[in-house]
Amino acid sequence: MNRNVCVYLDFLTPAQEETMATCAKENGYTIAFFSPDQLEQAKEHAQSCQAIIANSPALLQAAPATLEWYACPNAGVEGYCNNPDWFKNPNTILTNCAGAYGVTIGEHMVMVTIMMMRNELLYTTAATEHRWGITQPMRSIRGSRVTVVGTGDIGCSFAAHVKAMGASHVTGLSRSGKARTNDFDTMLTIDQLESVLPTSDVIALSLPNTPETAGLLTRERLAMLPTSAYLVNVGRGNVLDQEALMDALNNDQLAGAAIDVMIPEPLPSDHPLWDTKNIIITPHVAGDMSLGYTADKAVSIFCENMAHFAKGEPLNHTVDRTKGY
Amino acid sequence: MNRNVCVYLDFLTPAQEETMATCAKENGYTIAFFSPDQLEQAKEHAQSCQAIIANSPALLQAAPATLEWYACPNAGVEGYCNNPDWFKNPNTILTNCAGAYGVTIGEHMVMVTIMMMRNELLYTTAATEHRWGITQPMRSIRGSRVTVVGTGDIGCSFAAHVKAMGASHVTGLSRSGKARTNDFDTMLTIDQLESVLPTSDVIALSLPNTPETAGLLTRERLAMLPTSAYLVNVGRGNVLDQEALMDALNNDQLAGAAIDVMIPEPLPSDHPLWDTKNIIITPHVAGDMSLGYTADKAVSIFCENMAHFAKGEPLNHTVDRTKGY
Repeated sequence: MNRNVCVYLDFLTPAQEETMATCAKENGYTIAFFSPDQLEQAKEHAQSCQAIIANSPALLQAAPATLEWYACPNAGVEGYCNNPDWFKNPNTILTNCAGAYGVTIGEHMVMVTIMMMRNELLYTTAATEHRWGITQPMRSIRGSRVTVVGTGDIGCSFAAHVKAMGASHVTGLSRSGKARTNDFDTMLTIDQLESVLPTSDVIALSLPNTPETAGLLTRERLAMLPTSAYLVNVGRGNVLDQEALMDALNNDQLAGAAIDVMIPEPLPSDHPLWDTKNIIITPHVAGDMSLGYTADKAVSIFCENMAHFAKGEPLNHTVDRTKGY
Repeated sequence: MNRNVCVYLDFLTPAQEETMATCAKENGYTIAFFSPDQLEQAKEHAQSCQAIIANSPALLQAAPATLEWYACPNAGVEGYCNNPDWFKNPNTILTNCAGAYGVTIGEHMVMVTIMMMRNELLYTTAATEHRWGITQPMRSIRGSRVTVVGTGDIGCSFAAHVKAMGASHVTGLSRSGKARTNDFDTMLTIDQLESVLPTSDVIALSLPNTPETAGLLTRERLAMLPTSAYLVNVGRGNVLDQEALMDALNNDQLAGAAIDVMIPEPLPSDHPLWDTKNIIITPHVAGDMSLGYTADKAVSIFCENMAHFAKGEPLNHTVDRTKGY
């Protein structure tokens, strides 16, 4: 088998390419980089490759059955899990870059949480209109009860931040009921969600999109949150009932929501989400690769795995396609 | 002397009044509360009082020379220091509530720092216009060099937050070159400011308004910051050359500024600050008393001091009127 690796990514700096090229050479691989406009060349080259590093269903589908490893820079890889026919060979290993996004998405979550607590958008609007805004009531992360649904790298990062800022109680929920950090005061399993909703000041959703998480926060469960609660969603839009979220916000049944993910994306200009009360909408940028740290981390995950791959060792960040993460 | 205390504040909840009344009783004082529309009644009552708890130059000026203690809920008390004639008796003790604002202003500083680093205002504008915003470059507190000028309660709170979020180096500057926490990697005296400007990714100003701090950040010093730097000001507007700040922002000599304090306040609608590039303006609300924690902390400072006052002990948070803080 040719020891060839095909890289088709849109965020690499020359220094990051150099890092990957050096790593490939050390591990006996020939690596080729293709820019976003070189899909056809990448497809052609992929025919002789053991590994592809890309986020491109088109390239994956063009790859031969001899492809052994497909490395994706994303954290969420539900498309790859839900479309097994994208892989000619069911044994091709899929890895993601969960672990690269905790820093950037964690900071986003802190930012929007404080923005909601301080009614920052009202001051922004006032400033746009050259008005000295009217003082708004404010709340604080200190003393708040924060519930984090999904305790991977992203949820753990947010938990650490709010804990350090004095949140009075941080509850984490995961499939297993376990987490990798000590920043949670309580750990629960996802099916215990309803028990913690009525006492959550902030609920943060950082779950992958899997059959198990889709529709988790139903209209009935949203109604169990206090009317003073704030919701943050950075996972996937389908984790909640979006119609019910809009109703809850517009009827003051919820104090605010900050959503970086929604349905559909991009959101069309005539969608009612835009005009929903007390909502902060960001266009799926919380984990954007423009932060050097995030891209560096993804590159280091690729390189570590290349070394494992060369030695025939198990890879890190492998995705269980039946679970979806 | 009558053991009377006159309270004239606009933020007390019934529970906080109760706390103060109980404390007064325990310490042998008679305490009277006046609402914001009762200035004349408060003035009359103040004639027989040993102590006044208020932020009202008018009430202070009406007080007799026998007033022993004037307790102000503010952190910044430059007006009281710059107008010695407000006190009939130069020996009247002035206390402030520095120490009540670290939590709220610290969170504000974290919020605006991340907002600038992630170009959040561009997404807000896009959302207002029902547009899916274009992905902007972003930066992170992690790995940033943060300079905090003024290391009282507020500066220390911000330093702790950014350190916990992974700032690579946090430098504090104070009059003495000392700080009360270990969250600073380096402590300098204020007159060493120029040495640290060229390597600051973020410069946060949390200084009281004193003759020493007025005009500290001159046009020349602002020009020593990297063009990629962000500035946060939560102290007083006159600490920097506001014209020079506008020029620096409009000419891309500075990446952003978030100012909660400015000259004048309120800012008139035709002031050029509003349309300055990459600026976040909040209407002096970072330390607003609407946060229960802040008001509770001020009340606890009043109560602690009432106990000290009753025993003839030195008070906490006394202001040296010649220094201005």
